Amino acid sequence: MFQSFQETASPEQGPARLAALREALQAMTLDGFIVPRSDAHQGEYVAPRDDRLAWLTGFTGSAGYCVALRDSAGVFVDSRYRVQVKAQVADVFTPVDWPEVGLAEWIAKALPDGGRVGFDPWLHAVEPLRSLQGKLDTVTLERCANLVDRIWEDQPAPPTGQASVQPPELAGEAHGDKITRLAARLGRADTAVITLPDSIAWLLNIRGSDIPRNPVAHSFALLHADATVTLFIDKAKLVDLGDHLGPRVSVVSPDSFLAVLATLSGPVAIDPATCPVIVADTLSEAGIEMIEAQDPCVLPKACKNETEIAGSRAAHLRDGAAMVRFLAWLDRQPPGSLTEIDVVSALEAERRATNALRDISFETISGTGPHGAIVHYRVTEKTNARVEDGHLLLVDSGGQYVDGTTDITRTVAVGHVGEEEAAAFTRVLRGMIAISRARWPKGLAGRDLDALARVPLWEAGLDYGHGTGHGVGSYLCVHEGPQRLARTGTVPLIQGMILSNEPGFYREGAYGIRIENLIVVTGAPALAGASVPDMLSFETLTYVPIDRRLIVTEMLTGPETDWLNAYHATCRARLEPLVECEARDWLIAATEPL
Amino acid sequence: MFQSFQETASPEQGPARLAALREALQAMTLDGFIVPRSDAHQGEYVAPRDDRLAWLTGFTGSAGYCVALRDSAGVFVDSRYRVQVKAQVADVFTPVDWPEVGLAEWIAKALPDGGRVGFDPWLHAVEPLRSLQGKLDTVTLERCANLVDRIWEDQPAPPTGQASVQPPELAGEAHGDKITRLAARLGRADTAVITLPDSIAWLLNIRGSDIPRNPVAHSFALLHADATVTLFIDKAKLVDLGDHLGPRVSVVSPDSFLAVLATLSGPVAIDPATCPVIVADTLSEAGIEMIEAQDPCVLPKACKNETEIAGSRAAHLRDGAAMVRFLAWLDRQPPGSLTEIDVVSALEAERRATNALRDISFETISGTGPHGAIVHYRVTEKTNARVEDGHLLLVDSGGQYVDGTTDITRTVAVGHVGEEEAAAFTRVLRGMIAISRARWPKGLAGRDLDALARVPLWEAGLDYGHGTGHGVGSYLCVHEGPQRLARTGTVPLIQGMILSNEPGFYREGAYGIRIENLIVVTGAPALAGASVPDMLSFETLTYVPIDRRLIVTEMLTGPETDWLNAYHATCRARLEPLVECEARDWLIAATEPL
Repeated sequence: MFQSFQETASPEQGPARLAALREALQAMTLDGFIVPRSDAHQGEYVAPRDDRLAWLTGFTGSAGYCVALRDSAGVFVDSRYRVQVKAQVADVFTPVDWPEVGLAEWIAKALPDGGRVGFDPWLHAVEPLRSLQGKLDTVTLERCANLVDRIWEDQPAPPTGQASVQPPELAGEAHGDKITRLAARLGRADTAVITLPDSIAWLLNIRGSDIPRNPVAHSFALLHADATVTLFIDKAKLVDLGDHLGPRVSVVSPDSFLAVLATLSGPVAIDPATCPVIVADTLSEAGIEMIEAQDPCVLPKACKNETEIAGSRAAHLRDGAAMVRFLAWLDRQPPGSLTEIDVVSALEAERRATNALRDISFETISGTGPHGAIVHYRVTEKTNARVEDGHLLLVDSGGQYVDGTTDITRTVAVGHVGEEEAAAFTRVLRGMIAISRARWPKGLAGRDLDALARVPLWEAGLDYGHGTGHGVGSYLCVHEGPQRLARTGTVPLIQGMILSNEPGFYREGAYGIRIENLIVVTGAPALAGASVPDMLSFETLTYVPIDRRLIVTEMLTGPETDWLNAYHATCRARLEPLVECEARDWLIAATEPL
Repeated sequence: MFQSFQETASPEQGPARLAALREALQAMTLDGFIVPRSDAHQGEYVAPRDDRLAWLTGFTGSAGYCVALRDSAGVFVDSRYRVQVKAQVADVFTPVDWPEVGLAEWIAKALPDGGRVGFDPWLHAVEPLRSLQGKLDTVTLERCANLVDRIWEDQPAPPTGQASVQPPELAGEAHGDKITRLAARLGRADTAVITLPDSIAWLLNIRGSDIPRNPVAHSFALLHADATVTLFIDKAKLVDLGDHLGPRVSVVSPDSFLAVLATLSGPVAIDPATCPVIVADTLSEAGIEMIEAQDPCVLPKACKNETEIAGSRAAHLRDGAAMVRFLAWLDRQPPGSLTEIDVVSALEAERRATNALRDISFETISGTGPHGAIVHYRVTEKTNARVEDGHLLLVDSGGQYVDGTTDITRTVAVGHVGEEEAAAFTRVLRGMIAISRARWPKGLAGRDLDALARVPLWEAGLDYGHGTGHGVGSYLCVHEGPQRLARTGTVPLIQGMILSNEPGFYREGAYGIRIENLIVVTGAPALAGASVPDMLSFETLTYVPIDRRLIVTEMLTGPETDWLNAYHATCRARLEPLVECEARDWLIAATEPL
């Protein structure tokens, strides 16, 4: 099993660890120290050695901060984690509703004028730190060594997972060509600093195994205008690569990263959103001109090439067959006979049975009844609930395959469910179909389309509190920028971008609904009489039946019914050859036209 | 008649006037001079004395620039005016596609390094000028006297139209209360400079008659933190006001405006988007701290109070009855018997017959057949076309009444029209209905809803090149900010904001379709089972039948048909008591359910 159902943090250790941290503060004559959840690479997952926030406080969420002062310690968590944090941290920590209360505001209130708060310049990116500093008039932020590392006696070593080659038949473009293409676009910059491991993985056509779920290798890189790359990585990770990297990529120890930065000539581009403060400090101290610009890999990586899209189709077919086997099995179990963990285990087993699963792409969300309404629910042995008659069961999951990353949510009826649930499910489905059917002129961003998914819910006074969709990597991170289908999505949609399409509805304490497919931006088919050339549309990648028992047919328009029937016909045509016996029978029944 | 069908400019005079301007350039040793369409108040309409661009070049559009150099002269016009400009300006002027080609880019290409271009600091706002300057490396912009005024021998005098009181029963809030309310929100500023005449009209509950279409008085004002106002206006305009303004408003000659600015203490707020450069120059030279902030009247003015909304409903009822009489008359005329000018004249006559029309709210657009596809078409004696059998006739018009400003577009079938036109009309209607029916959570901006109006067109590969809607004033400007239903509309929609809802479709050389109602943002009715409190929706203000002959009923969804039938039932219920004889018969027939 990839997924674990243990509580991994040790909240009972919090008070002693906080006391030790305060001794370290005293020794440094500091008034406080900021412990972020993030590591130097600003990703969603961190290695055990970098899980400082959980080690110190017990809080295991995927975002947040602890600000430890001499006589108080705030744990800043967003709306996803307000309940969880209370169960995970000891009394010595004060949960703070973030970002409603900002770090600056809280620090300024807690400390007298002239207060000094330390931070590790590896763990904070340039722009967020600048913004924090800009809001603090009376308190100084000071770079310092990491005080958690200083007191963490058995801190794990940095990961040394093996990297592997992502071959041309999967990547679709040789890494030499990518380097040449991007180097030509550096503009005035002589070098770009790349600190995001998925950018480096994409650029060099490698994948790594340093952290769970995201197949990347911790490293830093410099892309030079002469179309060469300096890669700062532990060479032990590269044993399996052979001569893949080639002569244009120099491999250097990560210990030399700052020293090499200080020797660069000419303007150096950094991405202020993700580049560690220490990189900017080093360049600045060396008198090297900096240009602030987005990581040059981010946009090209987001626009998948034909090979990557073909890979994604193949991965989705394989994953879809596993999902069908799982859903068919699920429907055969009597209501009340399964727990949420049983569901996760059975689904992971089906994915593993493909013999192609490299990892799950995130912790499967298996929420039954009221748990379905907790958007980021992760079942543990403590919370594990029974899947009862009348429940909606929400299962959000995905797989990492070498040809693609999947992410799918299906909400299924367990036994007999109520009319309210079915009506809400149908509204969510109508929103999902509206995005699937959308066709729009070039230049629009996710923000311009987001409302289409919500109108059927808005009509009934309903809505959901998350975005409609996020970008997805190609055997990389399941959450990838810069595109989003959301009010915060202002980057124009471009052909090849893969996104999720996942409207939902959540009735707190009762049930949760989400329906999610992955989609890819593509040229819209030509239409007679059209006046706008070259419109864009979405191709659906995910083909897995949507629970017909939850659809109120009369609530669908003709084109919506047509879309659903065509979708189910495609599910049947594509998946029938891949599944057998009971799963095949289930597929046939589940894809009957409405 | 308010509307004229004359060509008002004298393009044949252009060469001589340009030659005179060049002599003035020579005398000033300048290489060029910028002539904007705008006056010091940055409005859509200008007084004859301020119509410098038209006087010099012959171009009569409502936006643009002439950059006159020693040996060339560019006339910068946007996509609305690309055809018109060619017919209006002499060969000595070069039409430039703006903003695709920017002023800076064109000037930098045309002039050698060290070139010097003059501009009148009254006619350019701070931010646009700063942006222009920022893009010019090699050429200097220099403040100077207005060279057009210098050579324009019979330039008209500034307008001295009488101002009138907008009484509390129409304005809904005493101007003393508005002053107190806004003064309390000035923040750090001790004074705010107000240069927009509609802001001043709203703040002081006055209306003016200095320019056509917009009932405002040219003036400047200072709003002080002590809840007093200094109003810079020609006192001759105030004769009819009596003691309306009261002791908290000091009236000062506009000639003293700059001198008084230089005496202000404390920080002064200016709106960089609209404040003339000379205001900032004056404050800067006097060493007075400036704060850049939006004109404090803009947002409060946009959010109409209950009295203003009730007034708007009454104005729309009156205007709707005039529209019904006009449309009934139009339908009785045999195809081919009318011209576009006949249409404009008949409509204006119906509005005048209400005895309440103060002005039309803009030049009526009456475009038949191919002219309908010219979005900003204004008929003249030269272009006046016959309304033929098979045409779509697009009529976009509005009235200024003391209780409200109207703006309505109806597109009607003349004789027998084709299937393509009816299908496109139905798609436009579906978009209009989608906005009318929208219900959304607080916080969304026009950009978030704009797509709803376009989806039915996008589905067929169609779209329109303008926004879906603009803000509308309360017996003020028919185009009012800051709210917009458009991709550029990023200001959250707030209760009381009046907007137009006007999707369209234009087949160049063939026909144009637009359907426009005014709508006002209001609290959405409560719904059982709703999970989002306090959603917003639109109340429709305009009630005039939509041409049923152009609707393909099978293309509408059930809720769309229901909306249209309910809309027509309300038209009938509200307007039947107001119209008689043939108009009444027409209304009954035009509002039959589909």
